[in-house]
Amino acid sequence: MATPEPTPVYGELTRVYTRLYRYFHLSSIVGWDRNAMMPPKGNEARAAAEGELSALIHRTRTDPQLKGWLDAAAREPLDDVARANLREIGRDWRDANALPESLVEAKTLAGARCEHAWRSQRHANDWKGFLGNFREVVKLARQEAQLLADDTGLSRYDALMDRFEPGVRAAEIDRIFGDVKTWLPDLINRAQAKQAVEKVIVPSGPFPVAAQRALNVEVMTLLGFDFAGGRLDESTHPFSGGVPEDVRLTTRYSEDDFARSLLGTIHETGHARYEQNLPRAWLGQPVGTARSYGVHESQSLSFEMQLARSRAFAGVLAPLLGRHFGDQPAFDPDNLYRLWTRVRRGLIRVDADEVTYPAHVILRYEIERALVEGAIEPDDIPALWDEKMQSLLGLDTQGNYKDGCLQDVHWPEGAFGYFPSYTLGAMYAAQWFATIGRETPDLDARIAQGDLKPVFDWMGSNIWSQASLWPTPELVQRASGEALNPNHFRRHLEKRYLTPAD
Amino acid sequence: MATPEPTPVYGELTRVYTRLYRYFHLSSIVGWDRNAMMPPKGNEARAAAEGELSALIHRTRTDPQLKGWLDAAAREPLDDVARANLREIGRDWRDANALPESLVEAKTLAGARCEHAWRSQRHANDWKGFLGNFREVVKLARQEAQLLADDTGLSRYDALMDRFEPGVRAAEIDRIFGDVKTWLPDLINRAQAKQAVEKVIVPSGPFPVAAQRALNVEVMTLLGFDFAGGRLDESTHPFSGGVPEDVRLTTRYSEDDFARSLLGTIHETGHARYEQNLPRAWLGQPVGTARSYGVHESQSLSFEMQLARSRAFAGVLAPLLGRHFGDQPAFDPDNLYRLWTRVRRGLIRVDADEVTYPAHVILRYEIERALVEGAIEPDDIPALWDEKMQSLLGLDTQGNYKDGCLQDVHWPEGAFGYFPSYTLGAMYAAQWFATIGRETPDLDARIAQGDLKPVFDWMGSNIWSQASLWPTPELVQRASGEALNPNHFRRHLEKRYLTPAD
Repeated sequence: MATPEPTPVYGELTRVYTRLYRYFHLSSIVGWDRNAMMPPKGNEARAAAEGELSALIHRTRTDPQLKGWLDAAAREPLDDVARANLREIGRDWRDANALPESLVEAKTLAGARCEHAWRSQRHANDWKGFLGNFREVVKLARQEAQLLADDTGLSRYDALMDRFEPGVRAAEIDRIFGDVKTWLPDLINRAQAKQAVEKVIVPSGPFPVAAQRALNVEVMTLLGFDFAGGRLDESTHPFSGGVPEDVRLTTRYSEDDFARSLLGTIHETGHARYEQNLPRAWLGQPVGTARSYGVHESQSLSFEMQLARSRAFAGVLAPLLGRHFGDQPAFDPDNLYRLWTRVRRGLIRVDADEVTYPAHVILRYEIERALVEGAIEPDDIPALWDEKMQSLLGLDTQGNYKDGCLQDVHWPEGAFGYFPSYTLGAMYAAQWFATIGRETPDLDARIAQGDLKPVFDWMGSNIWSQASLWPTPELVQRASGEALNPNHFRRHLEKRYLTPAD
Repeated sequence: MATPEPTPVYGELTRVYTRLYRYFHLSSIVGWDRNAMMPPKGNEARAAAEGELSALIHRTRTDPQLKGWLDAAAREPLDDVARANLREIGRDWRDANALPESLVEAKTLAGARCEHAWRSQRHANDWKGFLGNFREVVKLARQEAQLLADDTGLSRYDALMDRFEPGVRAAEIDRIFGDVKTWLPDLINRAQAKQAVEKVIVPSGPFPVAAQRALNVEVMTLLGFDFAGGRLDESTHPFSGGVPEDVRLTTRYSEDDFARSLLGTIHETGHARYEQNLPRAWLGQPVGTARSYGVHESQSLSFEMQLARSRAFAGVLAPLLGRHFGDQPAFDPDNLYRLWTRVRRGLIRVDADEVTYPAHVILRYEIERALVEGAIEPDDIPALWDEKMQSLLGLDTQGNYKDGCLQDVHWPEGAFGYFPSYTLGAMYAAQWFATIGRETPDLDARIAQGDLKPVFDWMGSNIWSQASLWPTPELVQRASGEALNPNHFRRHLEKRYLTPAD
C-alpha cells in the first residue's frame, strides 16, 4: 500500500488568507474614501456595499472547512515563519468563530443604539438616560467575554484584551499600573511646580492651510514617509488607513493652530512607517501584519512623544516653521519645547499630555475590568470615576458625567479591553528609545542634526520587520532585552519634566 | 391536495443583482481611486484586489442556478418594470454566460498583449509588427462574435454591437451612415469655406490651475451637477466614474489652455447628470442603469456640443471667464463661439470637431464590420483606410499608420462594435434638442439667459428617468416621437456651420 503524500493543507489555508487580504484591501480603501472623499449622498449605497463586503469576509473566515485544515496543517512540517503564520491564522479563526452570529449581531445592534444615543446624552450630561442602553451593552459584552474565555482558557478580561495585545495579561497590567500609581501623582505635582515659573510664548496665527500642508509634507518626508506608497489628505477625524502598500494618512487644519495638525500628522506618520515597512514577503498573510494595537501605538508615540516633542527635534523643526510661516519669537526651539511639553491636569483623556495620560487610562482599566468581571455594575461607575479622578489627578468630577464617564466612545460601543494599549504604547516607546540610546550614545546630538537614521534602523530591525512573528511579550524581550519595564517610561518623564533646563 | 404558492423566483434574482450592484460599487470606487488617487507603489496589491473582486463578480453572474431562475421567473406574474428588469437580467446573464471561460481568457490575454505592444508600435509606425499580434485578436473576436450570434440569433456584428446599443442593428446603421455620406463631405467643404474668412482671437494664458478648477466647479454647478452626490478631481485620462449615488468626474489641467479642461468637464458633466438622475427606486437592478453607450454619449454631447458650444451659451460663459481669468478680447461671446466651432480636417479622431467626427466613425464602422464578418482580413485594413480617408475627408494617409489605422486603442484591445455609439450619441443629442426646441420655441433665448431648465426637465422626463426601461430604439421613439432620424443632426450642423452670423 502506497504512503499518501502529506496533504499541503497549510498552502490551502494561506490561499484563503490571501483572498481575505485582498478583500480587506477593498474594505480599507473604500473605508478611507468614505472618511476622506465621499460626498454625503454616497453614504447609503456605500454602507450597503461595505456591509456586503463584511458579510463576504465573515463567510470566508467562518468557512466550516477551515477548522479541519487548521488541525491538519498543525501536523505538517512547517518552518518558523509558517508556524507563526499558522498560530496567527488560528487566532483569527478563533476571533471569527468563537461567537455565535446571534450574539455578534445583538452586540453590534446594542452598541450602535447606545453609541447613537450617547452622542446627544453626553452633551446633555444624561447619565440616567445612558444607563438604559448601556446595561444591555454590558450584559452582552460579559457574554462575549465569557465565550472567549471558555474558548481560550483565559479569564474574561484577559480574553477581551488578548484581541488587542496578544499574550499580555491583566496580571502584567496590574503589576505595571500598580507601579505607575506609586509615583505618577507626585511626578505630576513636581512637573507642574517646575513649569509654573517657565515663560511660554504662544505662536501667533493665522497659519494658512496651504502652508500647513506643505510643512506637514516636508516633515513627513523628513520622517521617512514614502509618498510613492501613500498619501496625506484631510478628514474630520484624522486617522491612518489604507493598506501597507498604500498608506493613507489624514489630518485636519485649523488656521489658528498649526501644532495640532503638525503633531497629529507626526503621530500618524509613526503608524504609517510601521505599515510601510512590514516585510514585503509576508504581506498577504496574518504573520505579515502589525503586531498589536499597543505596539502600533508605540510607533506613533515614538514619533510624536519621544522624537517630535524632544528638545533636540525642536531645533530641527524651528527653521522649518520659520520658512513656512515666517519667523516669530515663539519659534525659538526652547520655547517650542516648553510649549509642547506643558503638563495640565484635565478632565478629558484625548486632550491630556503624556504625563497625565496614564492616569486617565489606569482609571478606565480598573473600572472596565471590574465591570467585565462582574465585580461592579454600570450604576457603580460614576462614584468610582469620581474617587479615582480625585486620587490620581486631584480633580472633582462629581455630577459632571459629560466630562467624566460619558466622555469616551469606547464603552458605549461595547469596546472593552482596549484602553490599556494606549499606555502600553507609551511605555513600549520609552523602552525602545532607552534601548536605542544605549546602542547610540550620541542619539540626542544626531537627532538635533536631523539625523534620524539610528531610530529608523532600530525600528526597522526590531519592530517593523518582525511584524507578527512573535507574541507581544516575546517581541518586547527580543527588541529590548527585557520584559516590559515601566521604569523606562518613568525615567523618560523624569528626565523631560523634572530635570532643570541647561 | 393544496396548490403550492407561486415561487417568488423573480425576488431571488433581484437579490443576486442587488449583491452584484454592491460589488460593482466597490469595483467603481477602487477603480476611480486607482486612476485619481493611488500612489504608484499601490499598483500591484490593487491589481490583485481588483482581480479577486472581478473573479467574485464573474462567479456570481455565472452561478448555475441563475438559468433555471430566469426561466421560472419569466412564468411569474410581473409588472412592467419587473418585466423590463427581467429582460435586462437576461441580457446580462447571456453576456456573462455566452462565452466559455477559455475564450474569455484567451481574448483578454491576446488583447492585453496586442495593446501593450501597440503602445510602442504605434509610435514606431510599425504596422507589420502590429499585425503579428492583431491577427490573433481578430481570430478570437470572430469566435466571440459567432458564439454571441448563435446565442442571440443576430448576425455576428449585430451581436457585438448589441452589447453597447441594445436593439440597434447594422441595417439601421447602414441606413443612417449611408445618408450621412451623401451630404457630409460637401457640408465640411462649405463650413470650411465660410470659416476661412472669419477672424478668431486665441485666448492668451497662462490660466492658473486653481482658477480653472474654480471655473469648472462653477460651470458644473450651473449645469446642475450635485456636489453633495459627486466630486471633481484630476487624472491623466479624464473620465466619469463612481456610482449613481456618488459620481466621480476627473479632468486634467494645462496652464496654456483652459478650454480643453472646461469643455471636457462639461462633457463629463453630461454623463454625470444622467447617472445622478437615474430613478432612485430602481437603483440596484439592471433596469435602473443607463440605457446604452450611445444614449450616454448623447448626454455628454448634449451638454458639450448642443449646449456649451452654442452661441447662446457662449454669452453665459463669457462673463465667468472674465471673472476667473481677467477680461481679454478673446472672451467676447462671438469670438468664443467661432473659436469653439472651428472645423478642421484632421487625421486624428479624438481631436476632431463635431462636423468631421462622423467621417472618422463611419470609416471605422465599415472596416470593423467587414473584418468581423470575414469579408476582409487584417492585412486589408491600411488600403481600405487610405481609400475611405480620401473619399470622406480628402486626406492622404498612405504609409502613415501611426495617424491612421494604428491610432485607436479599441482594435488592439479587441473591442469591435463600439465605434457607432459615438456618432449615434451625436445624432441622438441633435434629435433631443430638436424635440426640446419644438416644445420650447424660445429655447435659445432662455439658454442665453442661463436658464437651462427646459433642457434639464426634458432630459429628466424622457431620458434620465427612463433608465433601461426600454430598448434603445423604443426609448428614442418615445422621447422624440420618431425613430432615429439623421436629418436632425444634419440640420444642427447646417444651422451652426453654414448659416451666416447675425
